Amino acid sequence: MFRSVASHSLLRRKTTPVSSMLLRLSHTATAVEASDRFRVVIVGTGWAGYKLLINGKERRDDIERALGKPVDFVVISERNHFLYTPLLASTTVGTLEFRSITEPVRESSFRHEQDFVLASVQSIDTESKQVQCQSTLSTDLNYKIDYDMLVVACGSVPSTFGLPGVTEHAFFLKEVHHAREIRRRILENFELATQPGVSEATQRQLLHFIVVGGGPTGIEFCAELYDFVNEDLTRLYPQVGQIMSLIDAGEILSMFNASLRERAMRKIENRQSMRIIKHNCTEVKSNAVVLDTGEEIPCGLVVWTAGVGPNTLTKTLPWAKSKRGNILTNQFCQVGLHPPCLKYFLVLSSEILCFGVSLEFKSI
Amino acid sequence: MFRSVASHSLLRRKTTPVSSMLLRLSHTATAVEASDRFRVVIVGTGWAGYKLLINGKERRDDIERALGKPVDFVVISERNHFLYTPLLASTTVGTLEFRSITEPVRESSFRHEQDFVLASVQSIDTESKQVQCQSTLSTDLNYKIDYDMLVVACGSVPSTFGLPGVTEHAFFLKEVHHAREIRRRILENFELATQPGVSEATQRQLLHFIVVGGGPTGIEFCAELYDFVNEDLTRLYPQVGQIMSLIDAGEILSMFNASLRERAMRKIENRQSMRIIKHNCTEVKSNAVVLDTGEEIPCGLVVWTAGVGPNTLTKTLPWAKSKRGNILTNQFCQVGLHPPCLKYFLVLSSEILCFGVSLEFKSI
Repeated sequence: MFRSVASHSLLRRKTTPVSSMLLRLSHTATAVEASDRFRVVIVGTGWAGYKLLINGKERRDDIERALGKPVDFVVISERNHFLYTPLLASTTVGTLEFRSITEPVRESSFRHEQDFVLASVQSIDTESKQVQCQSTLSTDLNYKIDYDMLVVACGSVPSTFGLPGVTEHAFFLKEVHHAREIRRRILENFELATQPGVSEATQRQLLHFIVVGGGPTGIEFCAELYDFVNEDLTRLYPQVGQIMSLIDAGEILSMFNASLRERAMRKIENRQSMRIIKHNCTEVKSNAVVLDTGEEIPCGLVVWTAGVGPNTLTKTLPWAKSKRGNILTNQFCQVGLHPPCLKYFLVLSSEILCFGVSLEFKSI
Repeated sequence: MFRSVASHSLLRRKTTPVSSMLLRLSHTATAVEASDRFRVVIVGTGWAGYKLLINGKERRDDIERALGKPVDFVVISERNHFLYTPLLASTTVGTLEFRSITEPVRESSFRHEQDFVLASVQSIDTESKQVQCQSTLSTDLNYKIDYDMLVVACGSVPSTFGLPGVTEHAFFLKEVHHAREIRRRILENFELATQPGVSEATQRQLLHFIVVGGGPTGIEFCAELYDFVNEDLTRLYPQVGQIMSLIDAGEILSMFNASLRERAMRKIENRQSMRIIKHNCTEVKSNAVVLDTGEEIPCGLVVWTAGVGPNTLTKTLPWAKSKRGNILTNQFCQVGLHPPCLKYFLVLSSEILCFGVSLEFKSI
């Protein structure tokens, strides 16, 4: 049913020693847990959660030996697959098939079929050690799942910075369905632009593609889209011209070193049908973006890759947070449940860990 | 962008000599057409329409020589691809990727990019030789397209026989999006059936899959689904049981010979989790089907493959029709515009042809 990606090579990219962390924490967990099984509940199937699942299972024997009881890994996630995000941009233009960059979580040989739960986490009760879930398939279906150790690796969501129209009119690029929507929109715009009765102004608007945000996702998408329209679509639609704009007031690829940034800039500047707009975007409309100069640029597609922020679960958890809203942890990814008592991290709450982009470290 | 199927072998399956028919009819068309180009408008991108397009282009030189003027092939269709329907059932279970069984029509090297029009035909004006279209992408966009010769190959739609609930609750299997919806439903039902708090009765209902109609599509889908659940899904969901029912009051595969029918029946009867219900279905509900005995069978998926009938365009065309509602033609696929005057076929309307399942022959 699912085509596998080369999971081994992919999954070796992150090297957090998560399974050894389980070993290290086990004595605390067993101290308060008398059940004859030990349940590790992982929230999320992104890089952090999926990596923990795979590593944990690989070292399950060691962990069980150390704990002296069987360990079950239970995964709660709103999606049933791990997504190889660096290749997501390639699927928007058909270079890769969507199925080639996902790995179904159920393939990861759970002990019980109930050990994968397609649901969103609504709240966490750290007293009774329960996670309140709502089924992704039916909002009527709500249930609690017990844990002995909880790993919060719920990831992030695209950040709109509260700007009007972004959620309604822009396309994000973070999940498979986003890529599918972008691909459909690009093709629809080319079809629409060539239909009888479409004015030249509408044609120009439809075929102006705007990317907001010059980080790795935005730049990667720009490159894929540029190749797609210039190598494939111009052959199929030779009589219409399309342009691309990248909106970023700062420096593109700001997290990379100067020589790489300059090389990327040179490459972009050599592209005739592409330009960089050094302004901030203040609003997205259904057929235009508005800049901080007040200028309105008509366009047919806005892909919003301007950054990520905490998701609903992270926002609602009553735990210590950083300024950005991420969950604060110590260097062992342990969560401080009592904000003023960060020094009690290990003692109080070693059964709750947080992995991935939703955390920030704070030495204690 | 698109992955090609082996189009040559696929397209040789139907052997209607369409391009030679164009040659045969050309003298009539030129007699009433003074333009310096000749425009063949093809409605539909199914087996008949797509085959005509490919064959016509292959023999365009001959046709142009005979006509004494350039020939443009213009295609109007609500979908931008040809679909290899015999493999559609395989995509519902992931054996094949959707993209592997489609061939994009735009890849077929049109002379002008406007020669493919993503639209539905609303009406045909045979006096002014114009087709009234509505864009598939925008209902506001309506336009007329002139033709010198018109080929109506608009296909058919699934027939519900007017039974209540079929359109609302059953899944058809005729287009790519149908297969995608079926696949999603199967997987969702297995996920839902294994979630906490789901009763055994609901579990049984969710995992009872019903196929209505024992024609080739229904039987092929049954086979694919049976293999999928018994080879793949029982491994992923070992603790739940699923069953399949095929509802057909008549004989399965009735258009094939007796030995083939018997062999298929034997194979189905040997399948433990599958049964054939020899009744008619009278209603489809959101979670059950009703038989002509009044019995209500709870189920989680109904795939409706009980036959096809004329689509909206065929229904609204004011031409001579058969009892089934198909367009009547003579043996050259020519349409009789004046129902009482079938003998005038060749003289009056040789510029309109009808191909594919939407026609029935009538010798004149």
